[in-house]
Amino acid sequence: MSGAPPEPFFRSRWVEVPDFVREVPGAPLPAGFRAAGAAAGIKPSGGLDVGLLVSDSDETTSAARFTRSGTAAPPVLVTRDRARLDALKTIAVNSGNANAATGGRGMDEAARMQGAGAMMGRTTEDRVAVCSTGVIGVQLDGHKVVRGLLEAGKALSAEGIGDFQQSIMTTDLFEKRGTIEVDLPGGTVRLAAQSKGAGMIQPSFATMLCFVETDAIVAAETAELLLGVCVKRSFDRITVDGQLSTNDTAILLCGGASGVAVEPESDGEIRFGQALDALLRQLAIDICRDGEGARRVGRVTVRGGHGPNVERTARAVANSPLVKTALYGGDPNWGRIAQAIGMALPDTAPLAYDIAIEGVQVCVAGNAIGHDEEALAARVARDEVEYAIGLPGDGFETEVFFSDLGHEYITINAEYTT
Amino acid sequence: MSGAPPEPFFRSRWVEVPDFVREVPGAPLPAGFRAAGAAAGIKPSGGLDVGLLVSDSDETTSAARFTRSGTAAPPVLVTRDRARLDALKTIAVNSGNANAATGGRGMDEAARMQGAGAMMGRTTEDRVAVCSTGVIGVQLDGHKVVRGLLEAGKALSAEGIGDFQQSIMTTDLFEKRGTIEVDLPGGTVRLAAQSKGAGMIQPSFATMLCFVETDAIVAAETAELLLGVCVKRSFDRITVDGQLSTNDTAILLCGGASGVAVEPESDGEIRFGQALDALLRQLAIDICRDGEGARRVGRVTVRGGHGPNVERTARAVANSPLVKTALYGGDPNWGRIAQAIGMALPDTAPLAYDIAIEGVQVCVAGNAIGHDEEALAARVARDEVEYAIGLPGDGFETEVFFSDLGHEYITINAEYTT
Repeated sequence: MSGAPPEPFFRSRWVEVPDFVREVPGAPLPAGFRAAGAAAGIKPSGGLDVGLLVSDSDETTSAARFTRSGTAAPPVLVTRDRARLDALKTIAVNSGNANAATGGRGMDEAARMQGAGAMMGRTTEDRVAVCSTGVIGVQLDGHKVVRGLLEAGKALSAEGIGDFQQSIMTTDLFEKRGTIEVDLPGGTVRLAAQSKGAGMIQPSFATMLCFVETDAIVAAETAELLLGVCVKRSFDRITVDGQLSTNDTAILLCGGASGVAVEPESDGEIRFGQALDALLRQLAIDICRDGEGARRVGRVTVRGGHGPNVERTARAVANSPLVKTALYGGDPNWGRIAQAIGMALPDTAPLAYDIAIEGVQVCVAGNAIGHDEEALAARVARDEVEYAIGLPGDGFETEVFFSDLGHEYITINAEYTT
Repeated sequence: MSGAPPEPFFRSRWVEVPDFVREVPGAPLPAGFRAAGAAAGIKPSGGLDVGLLVSDSDETTSAARFTRSGTAAPPVLVTRDRARLDALKTIAVNSGNANAATGGRGMDEAARMQGAGAMMGRTTEDRVAVCSTGVIGVQLDGHKVVRGLLEAGKALSAEGIGDFQQSIMTTDLFEKRGTIEVDLPGGTVRLAAQSKGAGMIQPSFATMLCFVETDAIVAAETAELLLGVCVKRSFDRITVDGQLSTNDTAILLCGGASGVAVEPESDGEIRFGQALDALLRQLAIDICRDGEGARRVGRVTVRGGHGPNVERTARAVANSPLVKTALYGGDPNWGRIAQAIGMALPDTAPLAYDIAIEGVQVCVAGNAIGHDEEALAARVARDEVEYAIGLPGDGFETEVFFSDLGHEYITINAEYTT
């Protein structure tokens, strides 16, 4: 719960940053948005644990995505089922307690939180999203949350972005947020995004929490389309520990204060989409980089002639504890990749698969081939390591970003109830 | 690569030992079997790494199971496709190199190993099973294997069981083998089994290697039936790290030297099956207990009205790194079990599931309930921890045994190429 956002924001070779996009380090929220954080006593550390974010415009449009978990938490169910997902304008959030596996009482607390959010955001309950993150299976103290929201409500400002970010973090080691300016044909707009997540990460679309605000004018259907596409290329493609969370939520709010519109099927929409894509991909990779205890981020790409097999193979490699510990150890041990491929595709032996690591071909048609082992060892000790797998046929390709698995993951998860 | 087999052999509360079964600690191989191990220089440690096991009777029957991996290793393919699986009588095995991802040359080496096994076992190649275990993606030095088999062939004896066991081990910390006597209606027979495995363990039926010998007379069809059923209740129900191996092989050899026959659909068959079941279940649990770096073994049972959901849920819990690190830490953190259930069953929220740990109910119908936290904390710090999950409906039940996930797993897998 410390660590300023790293600079520059865009620092992964796996993110393409269009030339009409500029980082704006240290910027406040886009025009028309205010936020704050409060320490309500939910986190044992006494840190900020309740956040409030509001869009001032009644014309605000939105889009949202939620975890597919069968044990999705009450705040997810309340937001998903009782709010207007295309017209959200306030987000009330707490960390330190996920309000998950809390049954009917948890539903009541989530609803109460939604009510307090509406009061402080000067709107109706159906325009308030509620989100919780933290320990599962402990009843949430709603009094504390309401008090925190009252306090945050009095402190709302465009500069509150930092406190808001702090209030949503749990085991995160650094702030995962960015603000960018995007030149559209009609003028310049801003996009800001705050996310959190380090463990229990293999979203069926999103990390634990990600909030995006823009001062562009975006129709709700356009927001829905763009968030959907960009989430599929970012949070949907990462894994820290293969674990789908009970509380994943991603929300895009479009307030319109810039006066610049993103029209459907326009150049502006394409540019806005590319900018949102770069923003979310960098944040997704940041979540892997901050994966509990992680030293390195891997990217596995798989090509082949059968879509489901391509996807299964990429997930099997990215979630293999043997591949992940090898990445942690800076060990090119590609035999474990061969093993994970075989696990993903049972009953297909002998299978003609190819493996290259950082451009060094180590296996062709299922057969180990000689290569420069020293050069390879040096390459897998870098911050980002790329694995390319070829399966028979072509026409399909996918990628998954993943953290390594190291001692700190064990320490964090064996010694603390998170 | 040390550690005598623990005594008593049967020591898990999860194994039912019939009263007509007796352990025979320190016994040689059942009558009619001989084995040996040799140090052929494949393991860098210089330890025993080539093993040979032969049944003297030409009437020997057998049954076998293999990994379903799409990258199954050449020794698996050679045995599966070129041997008479109902009439095996010799097993040639090496450790230190899995002969996997080795392509056509790997197939040639496996075939050469089969030929040397046939020579030393005084039989034909199609009655020889070959098995390899160790590092993946490195060509096997067949000269060393052949020299090792020649040496082992000269040393064959019923007392060679210990050397044979040592020759199949890799990261195992103790010998996983047992010998039992079984009273059948027609007389007493012996069963001995040797197994190995500690990492890359989530067999689609079997661990890396398990060999079982008996002096009973068993028809090949009966051997096939009994091995199939017992493997489904033992090696098919364990996971160390969720990783299907390229080399899993389980073989039952029935030599007949006792003169006691196991007739189909007789009391004797039921007894023999129960004894084999107890033997393999204890070995399977031993593999979890010796899971790389493991402190504790967990057993998750799931009941519910939908078979595939019951199975998915059990696997999701048993393979969750969050559940496994909590088990390692002796932490009752059941919120992670709720999370794993939700991951296994997407799009079903709100789901009415129950969770009990060591008999302490912690969640009913998806709702956290008060319980004696101190009592629970003490119970999850024991060697064996049981998790019982209820899903809606009934009619299906399953179990999975699993290791915890601790620092030693990281150390073993990040620092060594295995």
